[in-house]
Amino acid sequence: MPKQIDHKKRRRQIAEATWRVILKRGMEGASARNIAKEAGLSLGALRHYFPTQDDLLDFAMKLVQEKAMARIQDITMKDLPPKEKVLHILLEIVPTNEETIREMEVWFAFTVYARHKKDMYDANHDGIYSGMRKLIAYLDEFDLLKQGVDKDIEAERLYALIDGLALHAMLDPVRVNKERINRVIMQHVESICVEEIYETEGKKFNKAVKGNGSNHQV
Amino acid sequence: MPKQIDHKKRRRQIAEATWRVILKRGMEGASARNIAKEAGLSLGALRHYFPTQDDLLDFAMKLVQEKAMARIQDITMKDLPPKEKVLHILLEIVPTNEETIREMEVWFAFTVYARHKKDMYDANHDGIYSGMRKLIAYLDEFDLLKQGVDKDIEAERLYALIDGLALHAMLDPVRVNKERINRVIMQHVESICVEEIYETEGKKFNKAVKGNGSNHQV
Repeated sequence: MPKQIDHKKRRRQIAEATWRVILKRGMEGASARNIAKEAGLSLGALRHYFPTQDDLLDFAMKLVQEKAMARIQDITMKDLPPKEKVLHILLEIVPTNEETIREMEVWFAFTVYARHKKDMYDANHDGIYSGMRKLIAYLDEFDLLKQGVDKDIEAERLYALIDGLALHAMLDPVRVNKERINRVIMQHVESICVEEIYETEGKKFNKAVKGNGSNHQV
Repeated sequence: MPKQIDHKKRRRQIAEATWRVILKRGMEGASARNIAKEAGLSLGALRHYFPTQDDLLDFAMKLVQEKAMARIQDITMKDLPPKEKVLHILLEIVPTNEETIREMEVWFAFTVYARHKKDMYDANHDGIYSGMRKLIAYLDEFDLLKQGVDKDIEAERLYALIDGLALHAMLDPVRVNKERINRVIMQHVESICVEEIYETEGKKFNKAVKGNGSNHQV
């Protein structure tokens, strides 16, 4: 394998080992020693790939984010009616399976940890807030928002709802399961959107979620 | 001072020292040694009051919760119209000043930490979810909920919204400030409640907090 690719691959393996350590022991257990052990490397080898602990953590977190972003990207590329697309994106952001719950847990532990490292922390690091603003603007563009809706406040409300659900999906996955998350998100999106669009199509919105309505797509 | 009272007071002082350490260094810095130092005690003296670290953390967290509960209790005792009471309680749960943001931060760090300690963790430890269920039931009792509302899902949605807002108030207090939190919560409560009630009481509820009706946003 060319050296460059090997280097990249090795960094990724170390990042994955970092996630496993964080999941098992929390951030307080995510020492270079523990991560090196988990990755099957010497401490010296670990430091070759990541000179500092902050480099390592930063990279491990960016990788979590990239994975989530790639999944969202896949949905945005799909040919779906606007409201359905928004619903699918929201349902992708809230973790509803073991893999995404684990990612959320790593991300969350890191967020709390990074609070105490001044240079590391950016409140909008995950891009979710700006994403929510875009989704509200997107619904508005298709005249799907109820009249008189304050878009700024709706974006903030949606952001709080989604992050709160994500938090609860992680902390209490038995109650806050996929079906329940679906119902909460559906209920929320319906409450801020007009209904008429779907009625003029002779279809209830819920049905539209399972398919159809592609005439909304430009 | 009688010995019993002194013992209680000292435990409280140690709990407060624990909060300060967590705020400064995160949970990973909340060692017995650091806490003893912050409290001005020897390690032996600390262990006299709290035989184990888990005892200490558990007590420190219960104290955060008690403080929050006491503030909410104060509101529930007030003579306010039901919707206004609900709004005030919600606005008390979401941290909007330095003291409550600090409490939230301690609580949050602890929650993440406790995830990795099996016996310590209870997803409903803070009682907020059951509180949200009670608030929705309370609004329903006064016929304030819109017709056809699914109370179970509304409680879950309100819980997610409140915890998400609390999280954001902590992580990004400049944007998610008191005024903005007010607007989001107002908007939410209005969206699930009927409007008529306040007119029969000769009181416009919105005035009590800010602005009026669905057009206060521009």
